[in-house]
Amino acid sequence: MKICQVEKTLVATSRIGQLGTRRLLVVRERESSSRQVAVDPVGCKEGDWVIIVGSSAARSAAGSNDYPSDFTIVGIIDYWEDESKGVKKQAK
Amino acid sequence: MKICQVEKTLVATSRIGQLGTRRLLVVRERESSSRQVAVDPVGCKEGDWVIIVGSSAARSAAGSNDYPSDFTIVGIIDYWEDESKGVKKQAK
Amino acid sequence: MKICQVEKTLVATSRIGQLGTRRLLVVRERESSSRQVAVDPVGCKEGDWVIIVGSSAARSAAGSNDYPSDFTIVGIIDYWEDESKGVKKQAK
Amino acid sequence: MKICQVEKTLVATSRIGQLGTRRLLVVRERESSSRQVAVDPVGCKEGDWVIIVGSSAARSAAGSNDYPSDFTIVGIIDYWEDESKGVKKQAK
Amino acid sequence: MKICQVEKTLVATSRIGQLGTRRLLVVRERESSSRQVAVDPVGCKEGDWVIIVGSSAARSAAGSNDYPSDFTIVGIIDYWEDESKGVKKQAK
Repeated sequence: MKICQVEKTLVATSRIGQLGTRRLLVVRERESSSRQVAVDPVGCKEGDWVIIVGSSAARSAAGSNDYPSDFTIVGIIDYWEDESKGVKKQAK
Repeated sequence: MKICQVEKTLVATSRIGQLGTRRLLVVRERESSSRQVAVDPVGCKEGDWVIIVGSSAARSAAGSNDYPSDFTIVGIIDYWEDESKGVKKQAK
Repeated sequence: MKICQVEKTLVATSRIGQLGTRRLLVVRERESSSRQVAVDPVGCKEGDWVIIVGSSAARSAAGSNDYPSDFTIVGIIDYWEDESKGVKKQAK
Repeated sequence: MKICQVEKTLVATSRIGQLGTRRLLVVRERESSSRQVAVDPVGCKEGDWVIIVGSSAARSAAGSNDYPSDFTIVGIIDYWEDESKGVKKQAK
Repeated sequence: MKICQVEKTLVATSRIGQLGTRRLLVVRERESSSRQVAVDPVGCKEGDWVIIVGSSAARSAAGSNDYPSDFTIVGIIDYWEDESKGVKKQAK
């Protein structure tokens, strides 16, 4: 799983039916700084550090094996020690 | 999921039967600028910014678990704030 | 899916039974120039530009869900406009 | 499978139900030095060199086909010859 | 599939039960020179050039859909023309 930070919500009104109304978030990978879109079944806020699962596991993590996700948030990290900035507790 | 921009249609007359007559689009990834081919069940125009799902989820997103896709468009982004150019609403 | 060019046939006499006698081709990815091995159920010639599917979709595209492929050719591109060289129609 | 070294435990209290209470570890890939999060069904210590499976195989390796993992530790390497430092036996 | 060269056997006594006693090999990818661990159902020797399948196909190629592999050797290449060194037949 990847460690990512939530940036913002992505609005895509025109979408396939299987996506439903689940919230899609733009996230930035900690390692590569590259941005991807993740499905959020947990309920994250902007700035949260999260764990995201990819591959086929992203489908059932999003709630059903038919859900068309390849990147789903599975947990919010309690605190994250960023080497350059010291320990940072997440506001709850 | 990846954020990509649609470039053009790709014509491949000689293809395996399972591909059917679905439209194949050349898309360019926002992060890496690399080009891939995506299946389009949504109905995109050239220049649209889209969300594309990969991995095994690309199969059911294309309409059936037997569809041979590893990259399927699942939604069109309403607007996309390109940092270098400001907010850009998509023409509908 | 990826856009690749067929280079040559790869001979591997000692192989697992599930591979059968299907032809394996060395292909070069257009984007990265990296070489991989693809299963060819279409019937390609050296030099053809092809569309190749990866992930789990490569299995059924090769003919059966038990076929051990992660990279299967699904179509031959009719023509390919290489930016540096202009439009190039493929000889049929 | 990848060769990684275990760095530390990752605490994520707010998580989806399917993750259960399995321990999540931050691991560093030997080849790229990039960090990922792995599920640990083996029982590793910090510093252990481990073999980690990705893709859909990470699900059943974590104990069930519904487990939402894309990176699961499957074994601890007995000893690892690091070219720059000579053979290093792992303390058991 | 990837083209790799076999380097050596990897010993991991402490492992999950599903791995069984199958031999695990350290292999080096031809394209990137990066090392990974592959399951060997074919019977390779050090130095062999092999074809390795990844993704979900690596499971059934290793002998069963429950086998936790994401990188399984499926064939030994008869000869490999390394551009820098000319044709090299593999010793059988």
